[in-house]
Amino acid sequence: MEFKQQLEKYADIVNEYLDRCIVQNELPEKSLYSAMRYSLMAGGKRLRPVLSLAVCDMLGGSVEQVLPFACAVEMIHTYSLIHDDLPAMDNDDFRRGRPTNHKVYGEALAILAGDGLLNLAFEIMLENIIKNGDMERKSKAAAVIAKAAGMNGMIAGQVIDLESEGKQVDNEILNRMHRLKTGALIKAPVVSAAILCGADADDIQKLDEFAENLGLAFQIKDDILDVEGSSEKLGKKVGSDADNNKSTYVTVYGLEKSKEILSDVTKKAVDALEKFGEKADFLRSLAKYLLEREN
Amino acid sequence: MEFKQQLEKYADIVNEYLDRCIVQNELPEKSLYSAMRYSLMAGGKRLRPVLSLAVCDMLGGSVEQVLPFACAVEMIHTYSLIHDDLPAMDNDDFRRGRPTNHKVYGEALAILAGDGLLNLAFEIMLENIIKNGDMERKSKAAAVIAKAAGMNGMIAGQVIDLESEGKQVDNEILNRMHRLKTGALIKAPVVSAAILCGADADDIQKLDEFAENLGLAFQIKDDILDVEGSSEKLGKKVGSDADNNKSTYVTVYGLEKSKEILSDVTKKAVDALEKFGEKADFLRSLAKYLLEREN
Repeated sequence: MEFKQQLEKYADIVNEYLDRCIVQNELPEKSLYSAMRYSLMAGGKRLRPVLSLAVCDMLGGSVEQVLPFACAVEMIHTYSLIHDDLPAMDNDDFRRGRPTNHKVYGEALAILAGDGLLNLAFEIMLENIIKNGDMERKSKAAAVIAKAAGMNGMIAGQVIDLESEGKQVDNEILNRMHRLKTGALIKAPVVSAAILCGADADDIQKLDEFAENLGLAFQIKDDILDVEGSSEKLGKKVGSDADNNKSTYVTVYGLEKSKEILSDVTKKAVDALEKFGEKADFLRSLAKYLLEREN
Repeated sequence: MEFKQQLEKYADIVNEYLDRCIVQNELPEKSLYSAMRYSLMAGGKRLRPVLSLAVCDMLGGSVEQVLPFACAVEMIHTYSLIHDDLPAMDNDDFRRGRPTNHKVYGEALAILAGDGLLNLAFEIMLENIIKNGDMERKSKAAAVIAKAAGMNGMIAGQVIDLESEGKQVDNEILNRMHRLKTGALIKAPVVSAAILCGADADDIQKLDEFAENLGLAFQIKDDILDVEGSSEKLGKKVGSDADNNKSTYVTVYGLEKSKEILSDVTKKAVDALEKFGEKADFLRSLAKYLLEREN
């Protein structure tokens, strides 16, 4: 199958599963369901769960078993975007070409919808841990995701981002911020899927290296797109990093050097997949696709 | 041991464990740790984890095994208070006699500290699930807590609360709101502790009934204290429900009738403990203590 077709197929599997996770009801809290669905079903690349499914296929694992964990990561990612967009945080009005959650549902409900999605991620994983065996692998996978999302992972990255606003930080802090804010939740779906599929320590180590570099590449590309991209294609305002006085790869290294680093870390990501041979072709194409993306 | 001494002993065990869960560091995200600790270590009654420990002692279980789950519930409770106090939500300036989290750390960090505590609750439980055996009981206990905290539990209750502001709701919605908003997270530590201790279905059923009524009693008492209590003893403003145009037991049933219901559900809670004999004495005293509390 062609890369693009496979990518779409994975995204379809993810969207279908996510769709079943939040079913509308008519109770007083109906609005909560709407607000959660609004952001969760807003599309997006589904990069994180797609990574899990691709790793699973590469290692010959069961997609059914990996899917709940893959989608839990997407829920965590979505909640973080809702909270990140709030007026008290980045105060963004648009996301993926649509008004942000709080612009549609108000701040209070947006906060609760975010909380609900974070909580739901763990509900889904725990429900899955207690049924159909393989309890140990599943618990370990969920623990990896939990740690990556928390105060020593993504949330720490958010805080560094927040506290770096309005000042230029050095490349050490910039790297730490990106490794935590974006990298942790790109690494988690890769590593957790490998654990779920029973990968050995060496495979996990190589996939960890792949994901570490892919996450970094993803963030650098984001920083570049915020300078060079098109608002229309991005579905959000270009130049918002500059407006928010954020330190980015572009402000720290300059545009040309950032592109060099991007190309370099993408190569490192691809190199880490060597031992998997042609089975890793999809992941290689994905790295290239992310390098060239326009949104 | 006297009830009050035992209560203090339980609270000490909880406080000591919680204290070890968030250790300060000197990284850029230090402020996140401070903000999380500020609310988590602000004292309070520790009612939820105390319930877990008391159920554990009553059933002859291991406190060490129950403690992480008990404290996870307290983290979830604390995060919900931080988010509930935000300007976009209840906009409260004081909590437990101290400025609320966002008054000290700002809104952005308060949102992230709440997110961090919710996430930490699951990190702690999952860490615990993957070590030292009893994986099945632990996973089930964590799943119970997750469900109680989520979109079909506490968060749903928050949404009903939010959407009921400024209008008088009927007693059906009021009961649903309280069962979800407060009740779910009072039942969860009781039921999860019983599961962790290997209680049989009948014991769990009785404890569920106890907790259901205790949770309701707790909320009715809260509503009464908001009218009759003292700001000094409560550590927060009295009359804030009326200021926020909230429907409460007092606005729906009136003060006297609310007191009758309170006494009635407290009795129901105590009655549900009958089969446990004198081993349930602490839980009985706790129900009475909550009935008579002034904060």
